[in-house]
Amino acid sequence: MKSKLLLSAALLPFAAHAEGKQPDPRPNIILFMVDDMGWQDTSLPFWTQKTHYNEAYETPNMERLAGKGMMFTQAYASSISSPTRCSLISGANASRHKVTNWTLQKNKQTDRKSDVLQLPDWNYNGVCQVAGVNNTFQTTSFVELIKDSGYHTIHCGKAHFGSIDTPGENPTHMGFEVNITGHAAGGLASYLGEQNYGHTKDGKPTSPFSIPGLEKYWGTNIFATEALTQEAMKALDQAKRLDQPFFLYMAHYAIHIPIDRDMRFFEKYKKKGLDDREAAYAALIEGMDKSLGDLMSWLEKNGEADNTIIIFMSDNGGFSSDMHWRGGPMHTQNYPLNSGKGSAYEGGIREPMIVSWPGVVKPGTKCDKYLLIEDFYPTILEMAQVKKYHTVQPIDGISFVPLLTGKGDPSKNRNLYWNCPNIWGNTGPGIGPTCTIRSQEWKLIYYYETGKKELFNIPQDIGEKNELSAQYPSVVKRLSKELGAYMRKVGAQRPSFKATGKPVPWPDEI
Amino acid sequence: MKSKLLLSAALLPFAAHAEGKQPDPRPNIILFMVDDMGWQDTSLPFWTQKTHYNEAYETPNMERLAGKGMMFTQAYASSISSPTRCSLISGANASRHKVTNWTLQKNKQTDRKSDVLQLPDWNYNGVCQVAGVNNTFQTTSFVELIKDSGYHTIHCGKAHFGSIDTPGENPTHMGFEVNITGHAAGGLASYLGEQNYGHTKDGKPTSPFSIPGLEKYWGTNIFATEALTQEAMKALDQAKRLDQPFFLYMAHYAIHIPIDRDMRFFEKYKKKGLDDREAAYAALIEGMDKSLGDLMSWLEKNGEADNTIIIFMSDNGGFSSDMHWRGGPMHTQNYPLNSGKGSAYEGGIREPMIVSWPGVVKPGTKCDKYLLIEDFYPTILEMAQVKKYHTVQPIDGISFVPLLTGKGDPSKNRNLYWNCPNIWGNTGPGIGPTCTIRSQEWKLIYYYETGKKELFNIPQDIGEKNELSAQYPSVVKRLSKELGAYMRKVGAQRPSFKATGKPVPWPDEI
Repeated sequence: MKSKLLLSAALLPFAAHAEGKQPDPRPNIILFMVDDMGWQDTSLPFWTQKTHYNEAYETPNMERLAGKGMMFTQAYASSISSPTRCSLISGANASRHKVTNWTLQKNKQTDRKSDVLQLPDWNYNGVCQVAGVNNTFQTTSFVELIKDSGYHTIHCGKAHFGSIDTPGENPTHMGFEVNITGHAAGGLASYLGEQNYGHTKDGKPTSPFSIPGLEKYWGTNIFATEALTQEAMKALDQAKRLDQPFFLYMAHYAIHIPIDRDMRFFEKYKKKGLDDREAAYAALIEGMDKSLGDLMSWLEKNGEADNTIIIFMSDNGGFSSDMHWRGGPMHTQNYPLNSGKGSAYEGGIREPMIVSWPGVVKPGTKCDKYLLIEDFYPTILEMAQVKKYHTVQPIDGISFVPLLTGKGDPSKNRNLYWNCPNIWGNTGPGIGPTCTIRSQEWKLIYYYETGKKELFNIPQDIGEKNELSAQYPSVVKRLSKELGAYMRKVGAQRPSFKATGKPVPWPDEI
Repeated sequence: MKSKLLLSAALLPFAAHAEGKQPDPRPNIILFMVDDMGWQDTSLPFWTQKTHYNEAYETPNMERLAGKGMMFTQAYASSISSPTRCSLISGANASRHKVTNWTLQKNKQTDRKSDVLQLPDWNYNGVCQVAGVNNTFQTTSFVELIKDSGYHTIHCGKAHFGSIDTPGENPTHMGFEVNITGHAAGGLASYLGEQNYGHTKDGKPTSPFSIPGLEKYWGTNIFATEALTQEAMKALDQAKRLDQPFFLYMAHYAIHIPIDRDMRFFEKYKKKGLDDREAAYAALIEGMDKSLGDLMSWLEKNGEADNTIIIFMSDNGGFSSDMHWRGGPMHTQNYPLNSGKGSAYEGGIREPMIVSWPGVVKPGTKCDKYLLIEDFYPTILEMAQVKKYHTVQPIDGISFVPLLTGKGDPSKNRNLYWNCPNIWGNTGPGIGPTCTIRSQEWKLIYYYETGKKELFNIPQDIGEKNELSAQYPSVVKRLSKELGAYMRKVGAQRPSFKATGKPVPWPDEI
């Protein structure tokens, strides 16, 4: 049973609208979500210094957006797609929703096996809008709530909310009224129209990652990023006619592997001296950035720029653990951050984030306060002026609207938590079964298999090179206690030892 | 603001489900809605006698369904598509929702002009799920409510809920999670795959009636009825995997004009001696009937037959007012009923209706009690065990579940009402601006332009040939009073006289 929106006298703007037959004045909202984009995969410096990545890549439209809005330098997500996307749509922390690794096939764990650890029976079927489906986290989506309040809701791109043949695979089950290509898969078979985005000439998908619904672009040289952008703009053209505010979730498949060559930009980066792999990666980034620019231009041309909020975000850190796809030494691709996708280190979880909100957010500003992906849920509801609502799940997220308006600081006295009792796949620094706490300047990572604890002072050591647990035992003790207490409170899962069948200790039990 | 479902202890089956993680045991529901199908367009006799139409047409699957369920011989709708479909989706009587003629273009009345009458500013933009859109009736769709309760909801075929570029044009705005071809249009450009269902070779629609979304059948010889059935069965294949009960609204474009030849059946009817027009019409009917049979067979093959309710219905009477498309003398095509689509006479509003509900409805039964299209709204909610819900609009419909179970008779002491202060288009008996009341055996039609009142005893005179107002003045007086009172109560609209600018009298004012 889905819990629902309640009418509220507090909801004045909308109530007035309902009575007065005026067009709904609430802002449009675009959530522009990039896949696997690292903190440095842009010409816009989110660090205090400009890195060689900022020099190599060209993202003029992210710069354009930052000029109109606020950059967030400590915006966090989970280190893998599904945990992030399920937190986004549910407002719940990953330790609570238990979709802690990536999802695809129904009833199939995607974890690598371990000789030492028995992994928990996590929610490998993803989130789900109804009860009764095994290994799912039942969720009232924020999109459902804003739809019910009068928003026209559009999904474009990658969904990755629930496994194949479960209700959550379909974005229309999450409140999206228009769905362009969204399904269960968290990746794509091909960006290339020449390859029918992963379909044979007869139209058969070549893998579960084949992008559905782009048939009209098959056989063309149109890159998937561009096809999605064109489809999104068509959906916006239609939305504009409806006398409703719209919510567009522009969830690019870019810049996830395979790093196909977007030939609109590839040669330029070759000429700049990048090798084939890095030139392809840079082109993939710029194609995504062009999409952002095209949407911004659509808003300007259609007179909607002044009444549209744009939120730019990525779902996890940049891919750095397999050098088939990237240049440079392993685990360095998110420099100055350590490691990348799948890691508890900053390289896995710190995201490039920008918010523009005309008339509310001061243009060209920067915010160094931290926030976490589940905060998007109450934030977007607040932006949509939906003030009273019921959900089947607890909401762990906290609105970051006060950071946008400058009228408060929700990060004060707040800890952030991550839980990944899973084995993602690739290996590397900070990658493996862990739970993690961030508490102001401190960050503690607890490794389930070994019991090891790592303590870092993030502002002083953004690269997590100086492990300080021996120097600060009392901080380790306090953070362990708070981390263990939170995990127990939300009913988080942890592995067990195969040898004994006993659960591994919580961080405050060792 | 959409009003919403409330949790209720009364909703025991579902509550138990939510807690117990059992698959949802509620029945699947298929509403099989045919367009412009007359009461006699079938081999299944709904009258006490078999007509020559029953002999000519072949609908073995309607017979099969009737053998499993209950036939309704006095099931009513409005005489035009939009009023019916808006009553269906809103549960409101047409006199209340004011979508009293057919809708298509935003802000455009579709009425023919009159020298005498100024027609009211009716809701020519249809129903709408949000407030603030002019000339719409704001509606909480029953589909939205059953979706919120856990049903997977599928729309296939003709929607016709709201005008182009208004929110109601999109069935996903009415709670449908899957939409196959549904849009604003109430008709179709072509049934023929060879004609791309009304698209040029370049894929451009040739009219607002071109069927969207069937691209994969373009250039084939697959008739639209068959293409929709194949798509519906694919959607059911998917629905079956989701651990949710499903609601399929199978809303055929058939048997609306153009009466293209369905070559799977055409020659057979020629051989039976029907002329080209009638053979094409018969083939159109049998193609629709095959679709019903295919869906029934799908249910049997997939083990869902015992847990699926099927409701068969048409949206208005058979087309009888333009002999380009049909054979025989004008206005006789619904014999023994008088007139057809667009008329207040029985030929315009009496529909072939069948309901099968395994374990609840006694197979092979017949019900002669009357009911009206808005009754489907509370009935389907009751079938779906959604017992407590809020809607933005008043619900005029009354559940006919007691007729199905044999445990009650909601038609007792109940009047039915129609209002059509419009000029549809074609002319003929009973066609024109009227309002109408059915009160047990009596039916009174009031003609706005002339003030004429016609009284018929329906059980004794199903063909409405013996007008009895002169013989029964007290019945005329009582029915006029009840009709006028109802129209005023629900805020119904009426025309005005152009000459004076004054509204025409209500039936009890003359």
